[in-house]
Amino acid sequence: MTRPAGTAGFALNQTMLRVRDPEASLHFYRDLLGMTLLQKLDFEEMQFSLYFLAYLDEGEVLPLDPAERARFIFDRETTLELTHNWGTEKEETSPYHNGNSDPRGFGHIGISVPDVEAACDRFEKLGAAFVKRPDDGKMKGIAFIADPDGYWIEILSSARMSGFLT
Amino acid sequence: MTRPAGTAGFALNQTMLRVRDPEASLHFYRDLLGMTLLQKLDFEEMQFSLYFLAYLDEGEVLPLDPAERARFIFDRETTLELTHNWGTEKEETSPYHNGNSDPRGFGHIGISVPDVEAACDRFEKLGAAFVKRPDDGKMKGIAFIADPDGYWIEILSSARMSGFLT
Repeated sequence: MTRPAGTAGFALNQTMLRVRDPEASLHFYRDLLGMTLLQKLDFEEMQFSLYFLAYLDEGEVLPLDPAERARFIFDRETTLELTHNWGTEKEETSPYHNGNSDPRGFGHIGISVPDVEAACDRFEKLGAAFVKRPDDGKMKGIAFIADPDGYWIEILSSARMSGFLT
Repeated sequence: MTRPAGTAGFALNQTMLRVRDPEASLHFYRDLLGMTLLQKLDFEEMQFSLYFLAYLDEGEVLPLDPAERARFIFDRETTLELTHNWGTEKEETSPYHNGNSDPRGFGHIGISVPDVEAACDRFEKLGAAFVKRPDDGKMKGIAFIADPDGYWIEILSSARMSGFLT
C-alpha cells in the first residue's frame, strides 16, 4: 500500500473516553481486559487526569527514559486514553453517555480475542455486565460487555468474523 | 509485562463511529489522514454497512484469502470501524453527536504524526475543519480537526508529548 504524500508515519494512536471513577475503570481495563497502564498524566490547573492503557506483549517493558517512553506510548497503535475530570468519582452514577442511545454517535471499542466463549465465561465469573452474550440475537459469536461508565466493549474473534468475508 | 490469566492474545482491535455519508468519510480518512479501507461489509437485512480502515505499512498487502484477511483485519491493532446506516447520507447534516457537548462521553480519536505543524499545514490546504490549531489555547503543539460528522481527531506527536512525562 502506498500512502498519500504527507501521511508517512501517521498512526492511529488513541481513543479517548471520559470516565467517572478511574479506580473502577482501571480495575475493569486492567484486571478484566488485561491492559497495562502505561502512563498517568495530571493536569492540576485544569483539574483532570489522563490514563493511557494498552495491550503489551509478553516481555515488553515500558521504557523509563521520558523521551523513549513518550515514543513508546504515543507512536504506538494503539492506546485507550481515559479522561478523569476530578470530582466525578463522587457522583453516584456516571455523568457520561455511551453514544448508543439518542443522541447516538460513538458506538464501541472492540477487543479481539482468541476464543469469544472462553473470554465471556471468564468475564461472567468476574462479574462483568453483559449487553449481549455470544448466543443472543442474530450476530452469534459476538458479545458486548459494558465498562463501568456503560461504554460498550465488543468481544470478537477473527475466526468468527471470517464468516462475513468473501 | 505479564497479563492476567485468560487475556493472552487480546488486542484492542477497533473503535466504532457512526457516520452519515461514507463517501465523505472515506475521502477524509483515506485522502486526508492516509488510512486504507481494508474491508466493507454490507448487512442487507439490517440495512447498514461497515467500513474497516487502518494504517498499513509501506508494502503491506491485504490478503485475498477470506480467512487470512479476517485475521489480518480483526487480530490487528487497530482499525477504525465506520458504521453507515443506509439512508443517512440523504440528510443534510449529520444525525450524530460527537460526545464533546452535552451529553458528553466519547472524546476523540488521536493520530500520532511525525510533525504536527507540517501535518496541519497540509490539512489546512486540503480544507480540513479545525477545532484547535497547534498554536491555539494552552496545549501548544497539539491540534484537533473535525471529521465530516464533527468527531474530533487529535493530531499529536510523541516529541511534543514527551514534555508532559517525567
